[in-house]
Formats: sequence, structure tokens, C-alpha cells
Amino acid sequence: MGEISSVAAARCHRFTLYHGTFIQLPREPTAPATSTTAPAYDLLVNDGAVWVDNSDGRIAGCDWAVRGRRELDELAARMGWRLAFDDSEVDGSGETVVVRVIQSRADRNGFFFPGFIDTHIHAPQYPNSGIFGSTTLLDWLSKYTFPMEASFGDKNAPDTPTTRAHTVYNAVVARTLSHGTTTAAYYATIHVPATNLLATICHSRGQRAFIGRVCMDNPDTCPDFYRDESTAAMVDATKQSMAYIHRLDPSGTLVKPIITPRFAISCTAKALARLGDLAASTDPPTHVQTHICENEDEIQAVRILFPGCSTYAEVYDQAKLITRRTVLAHGVHLLESERALIRKRSAGISHCPASNTSLSSGMCPVRVLLDDGINVGLGTDVSGGYSPSILETARQASLVSRLVACHCGKDDGRRNKLSVEESLYLATRGGAKVLNMQDEVGGFERGMFWDAQMIELGPSIESDPNRIAVPEMLDLQHASRVCVYGWESWDERIAKWMWTGDDRNVKAVWVGGRLVHGST
Amino acid sequence: MGEISSVAAARCHRFTLYHGTFIQLPREPTAPATSTTAPAYDLLVNDGAVWVDNSDGRIAGCDWAVRGRRELDELAARMGWRLAFDDSEVDGSGETVVVRVIQSRADRNGFFFPGFIDTHIHAPQYPNSGIFGSTTLLDWLSKYTFPMEASFGDKNAPDTPTTRAHTVYNAVVARTLSHGTTTAAYYATIHVPATNLLATICHSRGQRAFIGRVCMDNPDTCPDFYRDESTAAMVDATKQSMAYIHRLDPSGTLVKPIITPRFAISCTAKALARLGDLAASTDPPTHVQTHICENEDEIQAVRILFPGCSTYAEVYDQAKLITRRTVLAHGVHLLESERALIRKRSAGISHCPASNTSLSSGMCPVRVLLDDGINVGLGTDVSGGYSPSILETARQASLVSRLVACHCGKDDGRRNKLSVEESLYLATRGGAKVLNMQDEVGGFERGMFWDAQMIELGPSIESDPNRIAVPEMLDLQHASRVCVYGWESWDERIAKWMWTGDDRNVKAVWVGGRLVHGST
Repeated sequence: MGEISSVAAARCHRFTLYHGTFIQLPREPTAPATSTTAPAYDLLVNDGAVWVDNSDGRIAGCDWAVRGRRELDELAARMGWRLAFDDSEVDGSGETVVVRVIQSRADRNGFFFPGFIDTHIHAPQYPNSGIFGSTTLLDWLSKYTFPMEASFGDKNAPDTPTTRAHTVYNAVVARTLSHGTTTAAYYATIHVPATNLLATICHSRGQRAFIGRVCMDNPDTCPDFYRDESTAAMVDATKQSMAYIHRLDPSGTLVKPIITPRFAISCTAKALARLGDLAASTDPPTHVQTHICENEDEIQAVRILFPGCSTYAEVYDQAKLITRRTVLAHGVHLLESERALIRKRSAGISHCPASNTSLSSGMCPVRVLLDDGINVGLGTDVSGGYSPSILETARQASLVSRLVACHCGKDDGRRNKLSVEESLYLATRGGAKVLNMQDEVGGFERGMFWDAQMIELGPSIESDPNRIAVPEMLDLQHASRVCVYGWESWDERIAKWMWTGDDRNVKAVWVGGRLVHGST
Repeated sequence: MGEISSVAAARCHRFTLYHGTFIQLPREPTAPATSTTAPAYDLLVNDGAVWVDNSDGRIAGCDWAVRGRRELDELAARMGWRLAFDDSEVDGSGETVVVRVIQSRADRNGFFFPGFIDTHIHAPQYPNSGIFGSTTLLDWLSKYTFPMEASFGDKNAPDTPTTRAHTVYNAVVARTLSHGTTTAAYYATIHVPATNLLATICHSRGQRAFIGRVCMDNPDTCPDFYRDESTAAMVDATKQSMAYIHRLDPSGTLVKPIITPRFAISCTAKALARLGDLAASTDPPTHVQTHICENEDEIQAVRILFPGCSTYAEVYDQAKLITRRTVLAHGVHLLESERALIRKRSAGISHCPASNTSLSSGMCPVRVLLDDGINVGLGTDVSGGYSPSILETARQASLVSRLVACHCGKDDGRRNKLSVEESLYLATRGGAKVLNMQDEVGGFERGMFWDAQMIELGPSIESDPNRIAVPEMLDLQHASRVCVYGWESWDERIAKWMWTGDDRNVKAVWVGGRLVHGST
């Protein structure tokens, strides 16, 4: 595979310098929300240079004045660099530092964009993508999900991942990388060997990931063929997987464990409390992920199972499971008191619009969550969601918000819409906040990891407006689904990317400075 | 371009025989709707042979017993055919008829599927795909749509299409063909030369199409820079375009005119009446397309502009514009009396879910329309809709129906959902009915046109469940976004196609037996 040699070569240079157009979202809204308007997130579009220290994969510097080749040569002279535009030259020749240069292509409407962050994805469900019939959450779990997840362990060989686990976990990591996902919070299954395999695959393929061994110990609600044998066995298995991941990546730079009670329905109160204690017992505390208020029937079941708690959120809060390192998936039907609690704990919501629509769970009122000051990111929720793409998820987030808007008055309607920019904010900076990584990933700033994608929308077909485009320019379908004419502003090009782009536009993906998909 | 020589070669054979797996929807539901269940549309999956008479592009015979090579050779012997598996052999060698054979590939999960029918698409708006900001219908028209459409004519050179018209119309026809659209009902602009150019391009690229020169004569509601000068000029221009299209394709087999009052708001009552008369004056009567009940503000404006009509539908009906050859786009907010009228006239609704969601128009209650016995097809409504793909539109139709379902009780919720099969029915047979072409296109039956697409989902990655898939099998992103493992039923494979497929899965497209996209 091509990327192996590129990675090796990139590693030989102390710095890699990225040159061209950089597009990202600001850390905070350019203009905050008012009672009649949504917040504005103006795109930050800069031509310039960003250089990455390959020893730690972080951005060592940015210079937005380095527009063309002349400014680039001046920068190099100032820094004492020799620039290498291919892999033939590497370090070691005396005092000059050779810097590898990678450029975005203006003639193909190319640009660098922060890698996407998927805050909620079930890796073992990937083979079921698109298979959900007319079910809703609870019958979907029984009919499609539990049988699939159960196949990742084998009672006759409990110490090894199944063949399916190898195939599926390689597939899902390769796929999400190809869609530009540089960080993912994964649910695995209850099986320790398969969960550990997922961690290994993320580590070796180079995806930043949280790996969650799924906890489900309630014998009254979980199927006999797929559940933890006891609360104690559940905690023990979780610890085993956490220990494995710590050995795999002691610094936790790339791969970290995440404590994963499936959802309140599948866990006993005792199990939730033990997991809350476990999360708090490490230094720093371990991340937590679970589901909340996805579907009305689910909420009703939680009410019956936990009569001592006044709300669904309280079930988790009593177990100390809601912290600034907690990802709560869905939150479609949260009560005001639950939103206040989540805000108070600085936890995050993973908004999963494709899943919520597919399973008729409902329309999450994202504007209400954001108005309340809650951190919101996006989740594909494969395979409740049919797509492993965060770009598709951003599209669905914007679409659903436009239907939420139909049920409001005119001003309120417009306020409820998620613009292209705000949807892409949720896909990058928002997700980083949900994972408590807002200083590490989600943008191009000094000190952040170079977790990035190089996007190409394709050549402009009306580049000369007085000339009819040649037929070859129109035969673009294998190169890109996006049609850029040439008159569009960057705002409009990015809108076209979000609404019509796909993985074909992702030419290269880096995580911590390592090329993990595509080529340059 | 590759297809030119293939077309030429295919034309030299009297018959082309398609062999392999054929998947289509039935003409009528397998089980009709009841008060608690949606209708069932079971997929018709057949291995067999379909042969096409290249002199008229229609299916001359089907034999679902011709499974393998042996049965194929027996059929050939019975029919007196010599089979040619490539283009090297053509007719002319005595009494034996040489039949060109084209096979779907089982090892790539390949199959033949009826071509998609797009019952509502604005060709000149294609450059604006994905550009709509937070507007709704009426401000979207003013801000984005009218300026773009106006650029298809030039006041200084009124007799020629603009350069943009050439580029955009070639692009949109090439793109929709690449997504498997074999029949499209196009809105063009008010400009006769550009409208005629669109007809010429459809004819030469081989797409079956209805071409509508847009009528908008109301000076109170249409912008000065983009409207018909008078009602008389409007009718005259429409007649000019109709005459051109009749000369281009006298039989109307491939390209037909369609009378296109933009919508009630932009036309005077006199204009609507003149267009109704014009439609009735031809033999057979000319098709008509317009918009109806897309958005609340639009409906309110129609109420004010046409105080003598009790409903929006009545405005068109008084002008005799609602017939069995009429396509009414949207119908999101139709009243019961309007649905009854549309049913009585046997007109069709073009359901445009991506557009309705993008512009916050609302959620069309498709089940209500179907329960009322109204013909329903799908429309991309580019560029209110962001995608030229009917597969994406089918996906959006199913998604929106799942949100409609959230607002109903449990049984009613499930009833409102459009299954994968029903969505694909709307994309093929449903669209054919809306265009009054149910005996011509939309399925594989003797006498119908061979309007078809060859789909390949890609190889099954778990074909040997005891063997871990090799990495190369996982590097599929440029070949297909669909992941087939190998254990899926055809129902499940088709669900994966609808939810995760795209134009990469469209390997070849034929219209009337002519290869118009891809290769075999």
C-alpha cells in the first residue's frame, strides 16, 4: 500500500510543511445567538503555511502571510530550511533542516480541513448498515443488533476475536478514515479479545480513538446469548480491556479506553455505580459513553426500571457517570432539568440525526441544547445511522434542523436551522469539545495535533465563462460528485461540499502528522 | 468517448440479450394497504434472460428459466441465434442471427434494475446545487434561482443559447444519466433557444425527457429581468419550443415537450387558460407540469392572487391544466378536496423530499396521498433539492416518512413509513405512472423500452466466513461505498444499495436499448 512508504519518508523529515488553502471553523461563534438569530460561524479561510513537528505530530507554527512561492522561500530562508517537494530528499545533510512540503491544489479547488470527529459509532454494527426495515430502537436491537454483536465472540474460543471481528474492524476503520474521520468514539461488543483487537487496529492504522468494551449485565433486559455473566464479571472484563489499551498506548495519545455502559436499560444500578467508581479511580479520570433519551419507549422503560430516579439523566448522575469526559448519545427527548444537569456537569451530547430519523426516534432540537450551553458534537451512530460519514451526518443535522424549523414561527424557524458552517463546526470543534479535546484537535492552531484532511472538489468547469466546457470536464462522476463552476465564493464551495461531496473528495488524511489514508 | 463505438456495435446486432440477475418492483402491491399496515411491494428477483430488439429499443422477450450457460445455449439453439460475448462479431453472415450478450456479474453482486424516473428537475438550477442558505421558497427564488435562470439568455443575442446554457445542460444530462436516470421531466428557462438546446442535448446523449419552456407572465410577481413580455409572447414562445421539439423527434419516442406554467403565482389567469387550451389542442394532448402546495406562504399568496378559486388546485383545474398527463410537484400541504380532485383527474404528484426538507417546506404525507389513490413519483427538484440522484431522493423519501411516523400513534407510525421497496417503487413504476408511461418504462416486461441500469455493489468481503478479508478487499472506497459481506439476502443487499449506494455502483445505463452511460 502506497501510504506505508510515504509515512516512513515523512517520518524522516523533522518537519512537514503544508502550504495552500486552510479552512476551519472558529473556536467560538463569530456572532453569538440572539432571541431572533442563530449564532454565526464564519468560515476561517486562509492561504498560508502550517508546519508540523513530526516528533510529536503537533502543529509547530502557522504563517498566514505565506501566500505564494516567493513568501514560502522567504519563510524557509528565515527558518534555515531547505524545502523538499517530494520524498527523495531527507534529513541528515549537515546543518540545514530539510522540510517536506505538501501543497493543496488551487486548480482542483483543494484545501486542508480539520479531520472529522465521530463522537458515537458502533464498530461491530457496520455490517448492518442500511438494514433496519421499519423497526424502532428496542425491536431493532433485538432483531438486528444483538445477533450481529454476539458474532464477535465465540463461546468455544472465548480468548480470541472471531474471523468476523478481524474483517469488520479492519473495514470500519479503513472506511471511516477514508471519509475523513480522524477521531472516533467506538462502542465495541462485550467481548474483551475483539474489543482489544479494535484498539490494535485503530493504533496500527493510525486513527485516534476511544475504545469501549460494552457493559450489559441486566439479565431481565439483555438476551441470554449476549450479556455479561454478572456485575463482577462485567467490571473485571472492562478492567482487562482498559489494561490492554494502556499497554498498547501508555501515553493514550492515539488510543484510549472509554467506559461504556450500553444504556440504563441493559445495566443494573449496581453496575452503573461500579462503572462510575471505576471512571473516577484513574488519573486522569476515564472517559464514559452511553445513550440517553433516544426514544419514547426507551425512556418509559427506564422510568419503570429505575423508579427511584426522577429522570433518565439522574440514573447516570447518581452513579457519577456524567462528567466533563462523558459522551451522551442522542438526547432527542431531554427534559429541561436534564439539560440543566448535563450543562452543569459539562458533559456532551452526540447528535446522531441519520440514526434518529432512520429509527423514527424523533428530531433532536439541537438549537435548544446549544442555547442551554451544552456541548454538542456529531455521531454517525452506525448502524442505527446508515452511513459511516460525518460529512453525511452534518448534512443530515442541517436537514433535520430545517424540519424542526417547520414547527416554529417564522423567526424561530430560521433560528432553529443549522447552517452549513454551524453543522461543520459540530463535525469538528463541537466534537472535540464533547470529547474534552478542544485544545488538541478540531482546528489548525499551534500545539494542536495535525489531524487533517486534504479535500479536492475538482476543477472549475466554467473557469473560462466564454468557452463551453469540454465534454471531458463533464465526465467527472468518478472523480467528484461536486460541480464547481468557478464563480462560487469559498462559502458557496463549502456549501457544495457539504451538500454534494463524499469520500471521493478526500484525497489524503493525516492523524498526528501521519498519513493514514490516500496520497499526496 | 467509449460509448460511441459500443452504441454503433450494438446497433449492428438485431438483438441484444441481457443475462443474469434482474430486480424490479411489481406493477401493483404484493399485499395492499390495510388500516394498520402499509402495502407490501416485494422485490421481483429473477435470474434469466431478457432480449431487446435493437430496431425499436423494446424488450422482445424474457425467459426467467435461463439461469446458466447451458440454458442460455439451449435458448439460442431454439431461437436460431449465435451468441456473441463481445463486439467483434456482427450480423450479416447468412441465416444465423448473431445476438450480442451482456451479463451481470454475480461475483460483484451485479444486477439489472429499471432506470430511474425523475419527475421534477430544474436543469438550469443545477449550478446552484447545495446553495440555498437558510432561505425558504419565495426568498430562495428571488435570491438564487431567478438570477441563475436569467443567465441562460442574453438580451444582446436573444436567438442563441448562452455559453452557460451549453455547459450546464451538458453537465446536468451527463450527471443524471450517471446516476441512472433514464427519464426526466425538465423545467428549462423562459428562453426558447436554451430550452431547445436542452432538448437537443437530451436527444443526442440519449436521455428520455420531457422539456418544458418555463411560462411566467405576471408582471406583478415576476422580476423585470426575468419574465415573459406578455401573455401572447409567452404562448408564442411555448409554441415555438414545442414545434422545435416535434421536428427534433417527430415520434416523440425520446424527447417530448411539456407545457410548463412555473406556478400559479407567476402566471396570470389568462395565461393559465391559454396554456390549458394549448395542451388540449394537440393529439395526443400535451403533458403539463407545474408546482402545487409546496409552502405555506406560497399557498397564502395564491389565495390572494386568485380570490375566485376556493383552493390552489382549483386555479389549475379551472384552466384545464390537471389531466392524466399532468405532473404536480410537491403537494406537501394539499387539502382533502384537492387530493380528491387530483385523484379524479388521474394526475400525478412528484414527491421531492430533499427539496422540501432543505427549504423547510414541510413533510409531505405520502401515505395519505397513496391511500387516496393518487399516483406518486419522485423528483430531485434540483436545486431546491441538492442532489441529481433519484437513489438519494428515494433515501430521503424513506427518511422523511420515518419522521412523519413520529407524529402518529404506534400502528399508524409504522404504516406511514415508506419501506426500501416502496421507495424504489416510487422511483421507477411510480414515476412512470405519474408521466402516464406505465406501459412503456419502469419495469422489465415484453414491449417496454429497455431503459435500464446495470448495478454492481462490489465483491462480498466475507465470501469465505472462515478467512479474514484481505486488506485489498477493504480498500473499496473508490469502487463502491456499499459493503456487502456475503450473508445478506437480496432484500438486504437492495436495502444496502438504497441506503449507502451512489453513482459508483452504476456501471452502465441504457435508454431504449442504447448504451448512454458507462460500459459493459
